[in-house]
Amino acid sequence: MMMNKGLLIVVSAPAGCGKDTILESAFKACNNLHYSVSATTRAPREGEGNGVHYFFKTREEFTQMIENNELLEHTEYAGNLYGTPREYIPKMLEAGKNVVLKIEVEGAANIRKLFPDCVLVFILPPSFDELERRLRKRGTETEETIKKRVGIAKIEMSFVKNYDYVIINANLEDAVKDFTSVVRAEGLSTKHGIPVIN
Amino acid sequence: MMMNKGLLIVVSAPAGCGKDTILESAFKACNNLHYSVSATTRAPREGEGNGVHYFFKTREEFTQMIENNELLEHTEYAGNLYGTPREYIPKMLEAGKNVVLKIEVEGAANIRKLFPDCVLVFILPPSFDELERRLRKRGTETEETIKKRVGIAKIEMSFVKNYDYVIINANLEDAVKDFTSVVRAEGLSTKHGIPVIN
Repeated sequence: MMMNKGLLIVVSAPAGCGKDTILESAFKACNNLHYSVSATTRAPREGEGNGVHYFFKTREEFTQMIENNELLEHTEYAGNLYGTPREYIPKMLEAGKNVVLKIEVEGAANIRKLFPDCVLVFILPPSFDELERRLRKRGTETEETIKKRVGIAKIEMSFVKNYDYVIINANLEDAVKDFTSVVRAEGLSTKHGIPVIN
Repeated sequence: MMMNKGLLIVVSAPAGCGKDTILESAFKACNNLHYSVSATTRAPREGEGNGVHYFFKTREEFTQMIENNELLEHTEYAGNLYGTPREYIPKMLEAGKNVVLKIEVEGAANIRKLFPDCVLVFILPPSFDELERRLRKRGTETEETIKKRVGIAKIEMSFVKNYDYVIINANLEDAVKDFTSVVRAEGLSTKHGIPVIN
């Protein structure tokens, strides 16, 4: 059998869709999922570690990384800069590792250009009302930010057609199974290579 | 959310790959899988029921069905005729049912032309030696048929590239999980339609 290269799985979701919870459970269920750690100027939330969830940077440091060509792509989202370190992904894929990259819709489109073989997954809430309810429940965002995030989510809907898969997170257990099924099925897809037996 | 049409999942495999065993377990694990029952001139094996596993026909009856245009496609394989009744599949898909069609490589190519949206799955043994061993163990085939079937399997390898997914049946449990993951992931694929939320 052929040795497979790893898959690059790009995940986008409006804030409050439960993306991180889904991925956390999926990582426990699959033994070959690895995060691509992004750089960001966003302030760390409680429990977020530097180099684990993100590389937290000042705007000055981030600008320096752009100038040094250290980022594959970068974009501004809800007032913060996000970017993907250049070296990390190709190394992981060559080693057969499946890399998960959390990124917003424009960043995802850029990654697709650089890695045409990547798998694009969009996670949606069951409805916008439910999204607003979840954001409010989270209690980490101001009312203004909540309204802003729901507005962005509505705009992002027009990007869904560029994605390979859409997972609607109505129920955590189902959404996790959806995500792990996508990873497993893509690993069997002939578009990434055809196995040979002897 | 959008109402989905069902998926047409076309499964091909050299005889002895464990296709029927994999599908039997997958049908137990998924509640939306339904067989498309084919017509054949092959003699029933022990335990095979008419109208359940196949519609068993004499060569004369089968020829009559062809003349009456009652078959979507038909083909000859290892000395027997196989064909797909015309009416069955579109009706099931419209009703949102996932239909599984077991068919050899040329029939699969014909079905793809008629249903471009169908999902083609090829099941392989881990090796040709293992395939021969499994066929011999089955004890239902003559030595001549075994050699013939392994020969056909080797020829069929050149068709694998036309399939969407390849499952290597080294281990039944993994192969079943592979198959059910393909069905689940394809149900989330934007190539079959984009869900809308409100």
